[in-house]
Amino acid sequence: MKPYVTEYRVIYADCDPFDVMYYANYLTLFERGRTEFFRSLGLAYRDISDRGIYTPVSEAHCKYFKSVRYDDLLLIETSIGLLKKASIRVDHDIYKKEPRTLLARGYTVLAFVNRDVKIQPVPPDVVEKIRHLLDEDAAQRQ
Amino acid sequence: MKPYVTEYRVIYADCDPFDVMYYANYLTLFERGRTEFFRSLGLAYRDISDRGIYTPVSEAHCKYFKSVRYDDLLLIETSIGLLKKASIRVDHDIYKKEPRTLLARGYTVLAFVNRDVKIQPVPPDVVEKIRHLLDEDAAQRQ
Amino acid sequence: MKPYVTEYRVIYADCDPFDVMYYANYLTLFERGRTEFFRSLGLAYRDISDRGIYTPVSEAHCKYFKSVRYDDLLLIETSIGLLKKASIRVDHDIYKKEPRTLLARGYTVLAFVNRDVKIQPVPPDVVEKIRHLLDEDAAQRQ
Amino acid sequence: MKPYVTEYRVIYADCDPFDVMYYANYLTLFERGRTEFFRSLGLAYRDISDRGIYTPVSEAHCKYFKSVRYDDLLLIETSIGLLKKASIRVDHDIYKKEPRTLLARGYTVLAFVNRDVKIQPVPPDVVEKIRHLLDEDAAQRQ
Repeated sequence: MKPYVTEYRVIYADCDPFDVMYYANYLTLFERGRTEFFRSLGLAYRDISDRGIYTPVSEAHCKYFKSVRYDDLLLIETSIGLLKKASIRVDHDIYKKEPRTLLARGYTVLAFVNRDVKIQPVPPDVVEKIRHLLDEDAAQRQ
Repeated sequence: MKPYVTEYRVIYADCDPFDVMYYANYLTLFERGRTEFFRSLGLAYRDISDRGIYTPVSEAHCKYFKSVRYDDLLLIETSIGLLKKASIRVDHDIYKKEPRTLLARGYTVLAFVNRDVKIQPVPPDVVEKIRHLLDEDAAQRQ
Repeated sequence: MKPYVTEYRVIYADCDPFDVMYYANYLTLFERGRTEFFRSLGLAYRDISDRGIYTPVSEAHCKYFKSVRYDDLLLIETSIGLLKKASIRVDHDIYKKEPRTLLARGYTVLAFVNRDVKIQPVPPDVVEKIRHLLDEDAAQRQ
Repeated sequence: MKPYVTEYRVIYADCDPFDVMYYANYLTLFERGRTEFFRSLGLAYRDISDRGIYTPVSEAHCKYFKSVRYDDLLLIETSIGLLKKASIRVDHDIYKKEPRTLLARGYTVLAFVNRDVKIQPVPPDVVEKIRHLLDEDAAQRQ
């Protein structure tokens, strides 16, 4: 599917003594991209959590290819990797904007739970919106 | 008063591209020291918040004298600066352990509020424990 | 002077268990605003540090009026508070965008140093650009 | 092999609005454990980087089983997962101390590079110390 793109400018707070983004902070960028991606689908986290549905990350992975550096302007590209009964895998690519270069690639798995942290099926409206996205993409590729 | 001392070892996550602790992270050290100081008084934050009393920071200040560097072993020294009706000023000194060197000095002001974020007087048991500390200190100085 | 405005959307990474921005992270917002303010003057940090001039923060202060909350869209307003021989005080206001509400106000003092961390006068081109800003502002107020 | 154990107390700065540790901060705990593990082998990062050898993380992974909560006292357990020609996989387990409960498990892959970010073989003294550890462990299991 066509990823959702969020821009981000790297500041000193993000970097470590090697003048590159500290490795844990890529996961923070993943959150930033994920949040805007879901907002673009009309599924803002705040609205979902107001319905008593929470989406803790149950797994995270990142491969670091080239360093993100101070003051880099980044593109955070977010897409759905996998839609399962009670979880979603979100895929995350971090690009330098100019010249466009892939710097890191990872994924996060979101579980769906209720207030008592019991596993829930992905809500129907979320499933529908993601299916719609995936279908659009399949149609475009034909 | 004699400050409460907490040790802390600086990691890469704390530092910025100048190989020194990022300036906002000193306030995180202040929290670390404050937490252990209140725990030492039998006033763990968790217990206080379980009683419906919260202590948001209403003001923070820091002067940076010398850089905290990667892998430094620090002493976070915490003491009460001022006890007021509905707030406490906590004083924070950050020392390098060896050789003992003052690196930064600051304070945080804690307001006392209830669940509805309405200002509350400092609870009597907190006042008593802090007064006791201050009296002990005055007695020792005589 | 008319402040420089940078927008910022709050994510979970910025917040603490009270569902509000963690108090140290306001200083990170200050950096974000400061960086874009100086870039807007043609004085990007990267260019300044390439000339062997560094601007460590020697003092920071913040008053917290109302909580910054998750998913808030903020305006970070940055202006020059004071121009001295070897330092600049930068003023920082954090507003909620809608409805416009002042949430926090602070300042940071930037020292100017060379590679050996020796104090330097503020470079002439920086002085000139800041003076120009302050003069424009004085002219507009007449 | 027997893991190296580092204690850590969770503070508000580490947590998010769900009153649990923010998912990226587990990777910061991994760094904390890794640093103390290598120091225990006489291989402090600072000494290694002084020799012009750097160990950027090329891959990171974490599975989150149960939430790390505010004020939890944690055990960060660190061990060598895999020793390769030019990289090391370090394994990380995060336990709650009392009652001992596994909360998260992950790994990081450290590449070895020189100042020009060219891949280097793992230095002989590092190989030797890790082999020694692995042999000790094999001997104890017999």
